[in-house]
Amino acid sequence: MSDSLSTIATTLRDAKTIAVASHVRPDGDSIGSIVALGRSLALAGKTVHIISEDEVPGNLTFLPGTELIQRADGQALDIDVAVALDTATKPRLGDRVNGCMGKAPLLVNIDHHGTNPQYGHLNFIDISYPATGEIVYELLSHHGFPMDDGIRQNLFAAISTDTGSFQYDNTSPRTHRIVAEMMEQGLDTAELARSLYQSHPLRRTLLLKALLNEMQLTCDGRIASWALTMETQKAVQMEPGDTEGLIDSLRTIEGVIAAVIFEDMPDGKIRISARSKDPRLDVSKVCAEFGGGGHRMAAGARMPGPIATAEARFFDSLQNEIKRLS
Amino acid sequence: MSDSLSTIATTLRDAKTIAVASHVRPDGDSIGSIVALGRSLALAGKTVHIISEDEVPGNLTFLPGTELIQRADGQALDIDVAVALDTATKPRLGDRVNGCMGKAPLLVNIDHHGTNPQYGHLNFIDISYPATGEIVYELLSHHGFPMDDGIRQNLFAAISTDTGSFQYDNTSPRTHRIVAEMMEQGLDTAELARSLYQSHPLRRTLLLKALLNEMQLTCDGRIASWALTMETQKAVQMEPGDTEGLIDSLRTIEGVIAAVIFEDMPDGKIRISARSKDPRLDVSKVCAEFGGGGHRMAAGARMPGPIATAEARFFDSLQNEIKRLS
Repeated sequence: MSDSLSTIATTLRDAKTIAVASHVRPDGDSIGSIVALGRSLALAGKTVHIISEDEVPGNLTFLPGTELIQRADGQALDIDVAVALDTATKPRLGDRVNGCMGKAPLLVNIDHHGTNPQYGHLNFIDISYPATGEIVYELLSHHGFPMDDGIRQNLFAAISTDTGSFQYDNTSPRTHRIVAEMMEQGLDTAELARSLYQSHPLRRTLLLKALLNEMQLTCDGRIASWALTMETQKAVQMEPGDTEGLIDSLRTIEGVIAAVIFEDMPDGKIRISARSKDPRLDVSKVCAEFGGGGHRMAAGARMPGPIATAEARFFDSLQNEIKRLS
Repeated sequence: MSDSLSTIATTLRDAKTIAVASHVRPDGDSIGSIVALGRSLALAGKTVHIISEDEVPGNLTFLPGTELIQRADGQALDIDVAVALDTATKPRLGDRVNGCMGKAPLLVNIDHHGTNPQYGHLNFIDISYPATGEIVYELLSHHGFPMDDGIRQNLFAAISTDTGSFQYDNTSPRTHRIVAEMMEQGLDTAELARSLYQSHPLRRTLLLKALLNEMQLTCDGRIASWALTMETQKAVQMEPGDTEGLIDSLRTIEGVIAAVIFEDMPDGKIRISARSKDPRLDVSKVCAEFGGGGHRMAAGARMPGPIATAEARFFDSLQNEIKRLS
């Protein structure tokens, strides 16, 4: 059972010092959510620490307030409440973030991942929200917390990126109504869309070019995949955030029902990103076989390298799932 | 001065036989709008001709009702009212469509292009609408015309494609509220987004690959352009609709403020598609110099070939516009 947003709002109102954090390798929803909540609580007079295990991806640093995010140093903070946003398991916060939050007498856990085991003292987990940012919007707007244009920009970034610009199944009438409300309050969503989607560094275009030149279609054209090698990463001087959305170029191909990217990691592991285009194909199930997880239509895992070995093992399992469909 | 939608609604209610058409080389907004209005009027008991100069692009044939669109044969139809949707000038309807509509005692002109010279007997021209489909939605829903799921699908396709999935400047709170309403009435927007954006024939991926391998960055990286030659079109067996949205891959590059595609046409002319990423840069002004037009941020023109000559002339004019900005 989830706690109500009212209960969480009361807890936050009563607190003086609050830390807000999200998951490792942050994305639009995690960054947007922690900055929006952190900024609102600061405007409400709280002392706020917005912390992150990893750095803000370059494609999100344009968002106002992201400069306030501190890299977690692992030292326990003297806080009344810690808030974890968009983080399906406690370890996903990262070791240093967990260190920083370790002495908090109260942990609030707000998330939209169905697999979240409710690890907080107060938990609001609701998979009907396409983005944690949409939950944060309701928390702030329905419970009298301050909201300004910068906060709205972060909430929009959270909602827009986690819905694939309102294209994914999780998008609801509520999502569109919230965006309409924020626009009526002055939010320039087109300017944000330009920054989020219409302005990639040339590096990213070169990555897409490599993807299109190197991609493989297998399993009778139902699987599209790409091996993003360390060589390619070095050649284009890849930075965090550069790969965001690249996988959609594989998924869009007609006939493809599973898109997979195998990415060389600096530690020798292979990061798998998988997407399904057929609601009957659950890629999180395949990823779970290798210790990963996620959503039905979008999931991930890490496997031992090299890429060729990871590919063979992952495809074996994925092809079995695909065979079950027919 | 525009006529009111009420006046137009009354006219349509009083008519028995109606022809509905849009512009040559139809896109998502034109196809979605004519099918939605045509189907609704048919459900209201009218005899309806949905006609088009050119064929429905392959990427839109999944929309229910597009099979009812007839290629115009130029023979004058015996109709009470002709309706032109999303068509900035009368000639843009096409010669055969104009022939079909020639005997209509009344022409209704509904559009969102500011340059529309109000060529109808009744005109509703309003640039605050991002898509003609959004006007058609209000015409149908506010004036008691029938609406079903197929009609909503066509209206969503019109609105979504003309707003770049809610990313362009023309997107308004009204746009999001209309989509929310249609979702509450049962519309599955994610399924539509999959068909519209997440399922391209492999041909289109090959075109994108050619674009990335061949694109040019000029004017200190502020112009990104691509020459889509007849050779490439033949090599990938290009079909109408395949290039839709391709230009965004040029526009997204950081630093680029103008994206241009030069496309070899079967008649030896060059079709220019231009996009601006800087609200100060009006690409319709540049296109107008060559007899084209469109919107400030998205415009087009046709020029004599070969591509190299068209490129040189267009760039000359475009670079002058860009110089004025600084």
